[in-house]
Amino acid sequence: MKLLYEGKAKKIYEADNPNEVICEFKDSLTAFNGEKAASESGKGELNCAITTLIFKALEKEGIPTHLIKQIDSTKLLVKKVDIIPIEVVVRNIAAGSLSKRLGLKEGEKLPFTIVEFYYKNDDLNDPLINDDHAMILNLVNDRKELDILREYGRKINEFLTKFFDKIGLTLVDFKVEFGKDKDGHIILADEITPDSCRLWDKKTGKKMDKDLFRFDLGDIKEAYTEILKRLKEVK
Amino acid sequence: MKLLYEGKAKKIYEADNPNEVICEFKDSLTAFNGEKAASESGKGELNCAITTLIFKALEKEGIPTHLIKQIDSTKLLVKKVDIIPIEVVVRNIAAGSLSKRLGLKEGEKLPFTIVEFYYKNDDLNDPLINDDHAMILNLVNDRKELDILREYGRKINEFLTKFFDKIGLTLVDFKVEFGKDKDGHIILADEITPDSCRLWDKKTGKKMDKDLFRFDLGDIKEAYTEILKRLKEVK
Repeated sequence: MKLLYEGKAKKIYEADNPNEVICEFKDSLTAFNGEKAASESGKGELNCAITTLIFKALEKEGIPTHLIKQIDSTKLLVKKVDIIPIEVVVRNIAAGSLSKRLGLKEGEKLPFTIVEFYYKNDDLNDPLINDDHAMILNLVNDRKELDILREYGRKINEFLTKFFDKIGLTLVDFKVEFGKDKDGHIILADEITPDSCRLWDKKTGKKMDKDLFRFDLGDIKEAYTEILKRLKEVK
Repeated sequence: MKLLYEGKAKKIYEADNPNEVICEFKDSLTAFNGEKAASESGKGELNCAITTLIFKALEKEGIPTHLIKQIDSTKLLVKKVDIIPIEVVVRNIAAGSLSKRLGLKEGEKLPFTIVEFYYKNDDLNDPLINDDHAMILNLVNDRKELDILREYGRKINEFLTKFFDKIGLTLVDFKVEFGKDKDGHIILADEITPDSCRLWDKKTGKKMDKDLFRFDLGDIKEAYTEILKRLKEVK
């Protein structure tokens, strides 16, 4: 398979159909823009399964995604898209960089769900941007596309909040990325996994996401395995 | 006079009328959120005169300001306002923190004028915020007020760009602050000076603003004196 691109957590390979690519989930773990890095055998497999499960559920809810089908334990066949270089972050509860930026206590419920845009650029450390920045950087064609990203972010949040609630998890925040397919339509791409979400166990309050790795708080493999197990039980 | 508040560049005193206060311009100079500090004798006087001149011109253009009248060489009588803790930054050309944040070359003309909001909070280093952040922090009553801030920012920019052009200066960017008067109307407050604007001489390309102090590039007193001299000559 011809490697087209290698990111921090995934590899993208050419597929037979030129409108499709193969997305492989790696075992590598990175945090703080790559400053902290490690590998966790089996993590790629867990995240591949979790993304598949969530993307299928989102498709049913009317959110278009790049997923075509799972090929093997770590690989997905997906629609080829031009990734929009904006990380769309949706937050229900203050944590992480939001707490730091605005001086909010971690765990404080926000008065309403907020959406943030970050410019996907490792050299610049993925800076927060506003709509004007997105426009002068030509990250999208017009302001309507920014509204579409916000709208999808909020819709995904509404669905996922209920979805995770069913399995005893609080969705604190998450990051999603979108791309444009061959027809120029904006669709959900990348992944939704405990690497890209903050998920807290409702009973114990324990973190079940990449913060375990970021702050050396516990075994991510155990947590991710538990999440997949619970997700599989959702009706 | 009873001191009500002392900031980095100004002191606010009680006035006879409870709806008014006296604003004194200090000689102190600070940069990088107070990390670099100095004093330049006569700077307060220059900035007081420059702000008076500009605010009067803006009032004529239909931009409401807090200015009532100049009392003496460093003091203004102004309407008492509740300051909205948002620094409204308007940019025509990439420079300073924008260049750093987005990797744009200093001096690059932006495809269009942009407006940014920063949360006025020294402890947090005045972070960039988006509209959602402004709302969850209760910095304004509603999103319409954010639109008003943007609109005023753009109007002030349109006027000032022409105004400074007449005296051979390019308005690169500037920061303004607004407040609410006793009737809840949003009016321009604080100052507009070479401390709060980037101004480049059109002929020589030389910086004529606080960057001279920030980066030890030259004599700010000489530059500010020259700006005041030129401003006084505008018809």
